[in-house]
Amino acid sequence: MSVTQTGEFGLIERITARLGPAAGGRSGAGVLLGPGDDAAVVAAPDARVVASTDVLVAGRHFRRDWSSPVDIGHRAAAANLADIAAMGATPTALLVALCTPPDLEASWVDGLIDGMVAEAATVGAGLVGGDISASPTLTVSVTALGDLAGLAPVTRSGARPGDVVAMAGRVGYAAAGYTVLSRGFRSPRLLVEAYRRPEVPYHVGPAAAMLGATSMIDISDGLLADLGHIATASGVAVDLRRNVFSLPDQLRNAADALGVDPYDWVFAGGDDHPLVATFPENTLLPEEWRLIGSVQVGSGVTVDGKPHAGPAGWDHFRAN
Amino acid sequence: MSVTQTGEFGLIERITARLGPAAGGRSGAGVLLGPGDDAAVVAAPDARVVASTDVLVAGRHFRRDWSSPVDIGHRAAAANLADIAAMGATPTALLVALCTPPDLEASWVDGLIDGMVAEAATVGAGLVGGDISASPTLTVSVTALGDLAGLAPVTRSGARPGDVVAMAGRVGYAAAGYTVLSRGFRSPRLLVEAYRRPEVPYHVGPAAAMLGATSMIDISDGLLADLGHIATASGVAVDLRRNVFSLPDQLRNAADALGVDPYDWVFAGGDDHPLVATFPENTLLPEEWRLIGSVQVGSGVTVDGKPHAGPAGWDHFRAN
Repeated sequence: MSVTQTGEFGLIERITARLGPAAGGRSGAGVLLGPGDDAAVVAAPDARVVASTDVLVAGRHFRRDWSSPVDIGHRAAAANLADIAAMGATPTALLVALCTPPDLEASWVDGLIDGMVAEAATVGAGLVGGDISASPTLTVSVTALGDLAGLAPVTRSGARPGDVVAMAGRVGYAAAGYTVLSRGFRSPRLLVEAYRRPEVPYHVGPAAAMLGATSMIDISDGLLADLGHIATASGVAVDLRRNVFSLPDQLRNAADALGVDPYDWVFAGGDDHPLVATFPENTLLPEEWRLIGSVQVGSGVTVDGKPHAGPAGWDHFRAN
Repeated sequence: MSVTQTGEFGLIERITARLGPAAGGRSGAGVLLGPGDDAAVVAAPDARVVASTDVLVAGRHFRRDWSSPVDIGHRAAAANLADIAAMGATPTALLVALCTPPDLEASWVDGLIDGMVAEAATVGAGLVGGDISASPTLTVSVTALGDLAGLAPVTRSGARPGDVVAMAGRVGYAAAGYTVLSRGFRSPRLLVEAYRRPEVPYHVGPAAAMLGATSMIDISDGLLADLGHIATASGVAVDLRRNVFSLPDQLRNAADALGVDPYDWVFAGGDDHPLVATFPENTLLPEEWRLIGSVQVGSGVTVDGKPHAGPAGWDHFRAN
């Protein structure tokens, strides 16, 4: 059955039915008023709310023949939840605006919603509202809200020369998976799955805020590009160390087979959504964090002291 | 210059430059951290945040040959701010996810942003963040946040038999303007302008909450359709009085000229975004509110005791 056959209100009812207590009460604890009214009401315990929006466009951010609707729901939620975590906040709620071609199967929407709800549930957040419209282009716009629990937000502008640069989560895997899929392959599974569903270590975000992180960012446009944002906002230089990135055999082998420099995936791939933060030099970091570089006087981002020769990152208006 | 020529980051810089203190400091007072980081931080003074999302798709919710980009910015903001007001809350912030065809003029985006910022400024809200992507379909997804100032949210479910139904703002004007434009005319100006830029009485929303409104809704799908949501959610019937809607001459004359029943615009048109609320019978209502009907035992929405024969409202997957 297509979304046109269910109709706008039929589709909204169908979605809402997947969210309610009957579906396992997966809404977050902070949801004071969920879907079904003009707006939702979400707890903001410390009298501030963190908010971020990301949009995914079919054919550009995802392909229906490469990922299941549940995968795409996970990815759409993760891209937004990671932005909240990168401020040092804990996500509390998601809203989604879905534009669908009239002939889209309603069951595809079910899968998308299930994926979003499942991803949000990993951090205790609920899907609290949304909007639906027909459109020639399948588009998923998500807004995430979060709570700072009394801490100052960790911005991009606080890195200081002498700080260490640390990363939590994987990088390069999803970009490798994307390349594998774009060449018509369906394996290695590790890489393809990393592209389909990012594994974001959300909890390290608030933990980094408590550890005194001086800056933090979610890597969505590539390590070099996103660390460039920190360098610019903080007025510093960032130097990364190439040999600290351990590349699993599947990634090395795929790079060999495809004739790609695996470090292009590491330095320019964004779809894994690891968190990268800077910390004062002597900070004792939990084992989720891997030291990947240092903050220095100057500007720009280098690798082992030199500019990286490969692609720099992703511009959503230009092909790379 | 097209958005592809400015590039993603160039376009983001261009937008951000229009929002900053240099552009008049139009961000809301509650904006603790504005655009430029992974997420914004907005004040939520009473430890709750109201949140709603609405998406506008080119060719469906607006037409670039009918409305200027500034008009469309006003409309996109208004549709979302009205949802916040309809909960009894005061809007604090907007976020926007913009999908644009690669050949869209960057100056069009400038206009859109200016319209959104101007509309938000009327209620003291700021544009705090967003996302941009290329897409074949021009789409504007907006999320609005708001503050309840300690009051309970006014939902759709509290209407009780014996309550009065009151409306603040205009209804039918925008639908008339849409019909006029769709027949190839550009006047009467009153109607065309009403379609291009809704005049939403945002302040009556929080005021209604303080007056003890038992339910409230923003009319975006038409009076009958949206009051149907209140009737269903509250388990009551709503009866409207046809003769209380005063129709200006321009609207009557346009209806005559186009062979349309003007009450179809009044009862099924949604783009004016008036607020409709129910109040206990003896509530003394300020003059912004016009009594338009009553809440009764039963179900459904009637006009002068009978079902309305015309179109009922708007389904975003079906043509009307």
